Amino acid sequence: MVNPLKQFKIVLVNPLYGGNVGAVCRSMMNSGMTDLAIAELDHKLDWQDARRRAMHAADIVLEKAPRFDTLAEAVADCELVAGTSARHGLYREHAKTPRDWAPHFLARAAEGKKIALVFGTEDKGLRNDHLALCTQIIRIPSHPEYESMNLSHAIAIILYEIYVASGDFELEDERFPLAKSVERERLFEIWRTALMDIGFMKDDKADHMMLGLRRALSRGDMTSSDIAILMGVARQTSWFTNHVRKLDPSVEAPAPDDSVLPDS
Amino acid sequence: MVNPLKQFKIVLVNPLYGGNVGAVCRSMMNSGMTDLAIAELDHKLDWQDARRRAMHAADIVLEKAPRFDTLAEAVADCELVAGTSARHGLYREHAKTPRDWAPHFLARAAEGKKIALVFGTEDKGLRNDHLALCTQIIRIPSHPEYESMNLSHAIAIILYEIYVASGDFELEDERFPLAKSVERERLFEIWRTALMDIGFMKDDKADHMMLGLRRALSRGDMTSSDIAILMGVARQTSWFTNHVRKLDPSVEAPAPDDSVLPDS
Repeated sequence: MVNPLKQFKIVLVNPLYGGNVGAVCRSMMNSGMTDLAIAELDHKLDWQDARRRAMHAADIVLEKAPRFDTLAEAVADCELVAGTSARHGLYREHAKTPRDWAPHFLARAAEGKKIALVFGTEDKGLRNDHLALCTQIIRIPSHPEYESMNLSHAIAIILYEIYVASGDFELEDERFPLAKSVERERLFEIWRTALMDIGFMKDDKADHMMLGLRRALSRGDMTSSDIAILMGVARQTSWFTNHVRKLDPSVEAPAPDDSVLPDS
Repeated sequence: MVNPLKQFKIVLVNPLYGGNVGAVCRSMMNSGMTDLAIAELDHKLDWQDARRRAMHAADIVLEKAPRFDTLAEAVADCELVAGTSARHGLYREHAKTPRDWAPHFLARAAEGKKIALVFGTEDKGLRNDHLALCTQIIRIPSHPEYESMNLSHAIAIILYEIYVASGDFELEDERFPLAKSVERERLFEIWRTALMDIGFMKDDKADHMMLGLRRALSRGDMTSSDIAILMGVARQTSWFTNHVRKLDPSVEAPAPDDSVLPDS
């Protein structure tokens, strides 16, 4: 069984900053990818900065990344070669967004095909002779007034889209189930008693008050744990008020504040 | 008319690295946002690095970002306060992904509500007292074997999701329309003539060869411009072979290479 995420190869063409290369290594591991290649490096990269920024991804990704003289060599073994371009115009018109491409890439990856994701130099992007090697063009949605995107951010977004589309990630379930109506009704019953006990409301306004309270406590989904906490508050309140009355039967609660009622 | 993207406020709690703060400024502008706040800064931030990494976003975002002693003050004017957490466990169980939350945030933003997106310190994230202020928790999908995400990458991904969900971005249309069947048929007719002219195939194998060629030229969507280019190739080929025959009627093309046929 092929792990589709392992079929992706990230290819950096002549990256200028070691820090970016290191940051890319982390993004790759965030998306379950480890195959990095560097092509056409024409200067001395700051490998120390790359290692520092890669953190735990340095050993697994950075140190194992092969270097190639040309992009053609770096992608030679890949069935699909997808280039990212932020520039507009000729030969970039059939660009699609990462979200559009992700299912297509993953379908091919699941068949065991290798997919190169190619990124150009920070300042200039991919040249036409690089784009010529590409079978797909990716354009990341970005605000028209400020399209220029940090290289490692562009890569983080594309790899994130592929990772999300892979279906590998699942949010953990809520530990507690959503409360059912019967639990909510029990809660409101206990609160009604407690609010009468502390003199928050008198019998004549109780129904109206409780409607307001029901609304306030129904704005979002409540779990059985939320209900248990709020029940505890009401029970404890009732216990204390009754305890006080036992000690001093003459105690009187302050008059209820009707002004909190929405339209009394 | 409210611009929903302008209703978001990015709040960084005690960021350690100026470079990250600068990178965040760029991500914000990539998503049409400009409102940044910094809270609880307890050390001397490298503002020079921040400015350098913010590039053109320095004047518009970084220089205007207010600082607050506490997170509570930074988010005081916001109806929604969404915190990002990579950690699991208590009080983080009702986290949703950025894609889940984005439409909800944007709906509120379109009503003119302010939405704080809150991010903790690089090494430790948000504390429980920070999460206590939050009305929503965001968790970014990340591979379980390597969940730790660079702060500015996490922000880039969340802002990108909100920007995409805003519908603000549209890919430019292909400049040329998809070719219609009638154009494709004209192309194959001209190629058939040209391939006979150069002796690539003889009459008896032509239909079979043309089926293979039709297949090869039908793997993806072709535009009318693609068709025009390929027609030009065939026409020029025919012209040259006919021109050669006029100059030397005895010229003979090499025998066709039947081995290219898929199953002849």
